Amino acid sequence: NSKLKIFSLNSNYHLAKEIADEVGVELGKSSVKRFSDGEIQINIEESIRGCDVFVIQSTCEPVNENLMELLIMVDALKRASAKTISIVMPYYGYARQDRKARAREPITAKLVANLLETAGADRVITLDLHAPQIQGFFDILIDHLMGVPILADYFEKRDFNRDDLVIVSPDHGGVTRARKLAERLKAPIAIIDKRRPRPNVAEVMNIVGNIDGKVAILIDDIIDTAGTITLAANALVENGAKEVYACCTHPVLSGPAIERIDNSMIKELVVTNSIPLGDEKKIGKIKQLSVAPLISEAIIRVYEQQSVSTLFD
Amino acid sequence: NSKLKIFSLNSNYHLAKEIADEVGVELGKSSVKRFSDGEIQINIEESIRGCDVFVIQSTCEPVNENLMELLIMVDALKRASAKTISIVMPYYGYARQDRKARAREPITAKLVANLLETAGADRVITLDLHAPQIQGFFDILIDHLMGVPILADYFEKRDFNRDDLVIVSPDHGGVTRARKLAERLKAPIAIIDKRRPRPNVAEVMNIVGNIDGKVAILIDDIIDTAGTITLAANALVENGAKEVYACCTHPVLSGPAIERIDNSMIKELVVTNSIPLGDEKKIGKIKQLSVAPLISEAIIRVYEQQSVSTLFD
Ligand SMILES: Nc1ncnc2c1ncn2[C@@H]1O[C@H](COP(=O)(O)O)[C@@H](O)[C@H]1O
Ligand SMILES: Nc1ncnc2c1ncn2[C@@H]1O[C@H](COP(=O)(O)O)[C@@H](O)[C@H]1O
Repeated sequence: NSKLKIFSLNSNYHLAKEIADEVGVELGKSSVKRFSDGEIQINIEESIRGCDVFVIQSTCEPVNENLMELLIMVDALKRASAKTISIVMPYYGYARQDRKARAREPITAKLVANLLETAGADRVITLDLHAPQIQGFFDILIDHLMGVPILADYFEKRDFNRDDLVIVSPDHGGVTRARKLAERLKAPIAIIDKRRPRPNVAEVMNIVGNIDGKVAILIDDIIDTAGTITLAANALVENGAKEVYACCTHPVLSGPAIERIDNSMIKELVVTNSIPLGDEKKIGKIKQLSVAPLISEAIIRVYEQQSVSTLFD
Repeated sequence: NSKLKIFSLNSNYHLAKEIADEVGVELGKSSVKRFSDGEIQINIEESIRGCDVFVIQSTCEPVNENLMELLIMVDALKRASAKTISIVMPYYGYARQDRKARAREPITAKLVANLLETAGADRVITLDLHAPQIQGFFDILIDHLMGVPILADYFEKRDFNRDDLVIVSPDHGGVTRARKLAERLKAPIAIIDKRRPRPNVAEVMNIVGNIDGKVAILIDDIIDTAGTITLAANALVENGAKEVYACCTHPVLSGPAIERIDNSMIKELVVTNSIPLGDEKKIGKIKQLSVAPLISEAIIRVYEQQSVSTLFD
C-alpha cells in the first residue's frame, strides 16, 4: 500500500494540523518561505516518492500568494515522484468570477482550474463552491463537500423551539442552500426579494414568507463585505422577526465586514474554518465550527479508493 | 490588416507608456483593480476582437500579484477574441528557479512558462533571461532580447580612455555576458573567482585578469541583494582598480541592496527599466536606461510578421 502524506501550506495551518490529527498522520515536513525579493521558496523535507499526497490550502486572502504557493508546491511534489497529488482547497478563491457577466471579462474561476491541472494536480477536494458549475471547469476528479450539515448540527443542538424557526435566503440565488438547511432543521423557508422600484431609487427589501415573531436563520455560502447579510438581518427585525442568526461556510469578511456585523441586528454569526479568522476578526458574535472531521473523512475515502485501485493495477 | 493594441498592467506602467509612444499607438483602455478581498478585477474597456494584442508586464515584486494579473488579463483577452496575444515580460520572475539544485525542489521557471501557455499566450517577448535555457521551457514562440547593447551604448558615450577599460564578470556564470560587453567596448575581460580554501573559512576573491590601474566595469544580469556585486567592487579596488562601475539589466534591488550599493566602492550603477525603481531606490549612484526602443522595435517586427503571414492565410 502506498503511503498517505498530508502537507500544509501557509493559508490554513491550524486546520491542516487538525486534519492530520484526525487522519492519524504527522503533517509532512516542508518549508514555504520567501526569498528576499518576494519569490516563493519551497523545500519538501522528506521523501514522498510513490506516496498519495494531500496538500491543504485555501485560496483566501492573500489569494494570489496562496494560489502561487499551491501551484509551486504541486510542481515540486510532481517532480519528487508523488504517486497522486490531491489538492484540498476548503475555500476556492476567485469562484465568484465564474462567468462573463459583462463583455471582455475574464472567467478566473476556470483559469484557476486550468492552472491547478497544469501544475500537476490529480484531484481537487473542495467545499461549497460558489457555483456548483465550477465542478465542470475541471477535467480531473473533483470532490465537492457540503458545509450545511455542519451548520445544521450546530443549530440542532441549540434549544430553539422548532415551531419558531425560519430559514432565510438573503437572495434568490441562495434558495437551494436555504432549503437544505431547512430540511435538516425541519423548518420553513423565507426569501428576501430585493427590488429597485425605479432606476436610481434605493432597493426595497421585500420578504417572501412568514417571519413574524420567529427566530430567523440567514444562510449564505460566502460572507464577504457583509453588506447583503446585515441589511437582510435588519430588514427581518424591522418586519417582525424575534431574533436573527446568520451562518455561512466561507467567512471572507473583508473591508467593513466586522464593523457591519458588530453593528447589525445579527445575534450570532456561525461560520466554518475553511478560512481562518485573524485575531481582529474574532469578535464575540462570531462562532467558528471546524470542517476537519468532514475533510479528513473525505481524505480517507479518497486514499482508500486509490489504494484499492492500486490492487487491480 | 489586423490592428495592433498595447495594454499595460500594474508592474511597469511608465515603460508601457513609453513603448506605446514609440510604436505610435495609444495604450489600450483597461482597468486592473482589486476587489475588497484582494482578488484581481480586470475590465478591458475597448474592443480587441481580431487584434494583435501585446501586454506589458514584468513579474518583479510583488511577483505573485503581477503574475496573476498577467494570467487573468490573458484569459480576458482570449475570451474577448484577440487574434494573437503576445506577452511582453521585460523581467521574467522566478528565472533563478530554473533547475532542481537540490532534491524535491520545484522548477518554478518552467511552471511559469506552462501557466502563461495555459492562460492562452501565443508568444512571449522577454529580455536577458537568467538562463537562456528557459527559452526551451516554452512550446510557444519566444523572442529573447539582449540588454548588453543598451549598456554598451551608454558606456561608449562616456569619455573613458579605451586602454584603461576592463570588463569584469563577478562569477564564472557571467563570462559570456562580460565578453559581449567587452567586444562592444573593445576592452579585455577579467573574472572574479570566488574560492573557499577550506570548509568554514571565508571565501577568497581571486581576480583572474589584469585590473591594475584600470577602470573596471562589472556586469551581471540581475542585481538582487547586491551582495556579490558590492563585494566584487570592493575586491577590485583593493586589488588596484582605479574606478569601479557596475551594470545589469534587471535591478531587483531587494532587502539591503540600496544600502550596500551606497556604501560600496561602486562609482555608478547602470541599470535598465525592465523593473521600475521605487522612489526609495532612486539614489544618485544609480542611472536607469530605457528598454523602450528595443522592445518597441521587437513589437513592430512581430506585428509585421504576423500581418504578413495573414496575407498568406
Ligand atoms: N472577489 C470578489 N468580490 C466582490 N465581487 C466579486 C468578486 N469576484 C467576483 N465578483 C463579482 O461578483 C459577481 C458574481 O457574484 P454572484 O452574482 O453572487 O455569483 C460578478 O459580477 C463578479 O464580477
Ligand atoms: N528569488 C531568489 N532569490 C535568491 N535566490 C534564489 C531566488 N530564486 C532562486 N534562487 C536560488 O538561486 C540559485 C540559482 O541561482 P544561479 O546559481 O545564479 O543560477 C538556486 O539555488 C535557487 O535556489
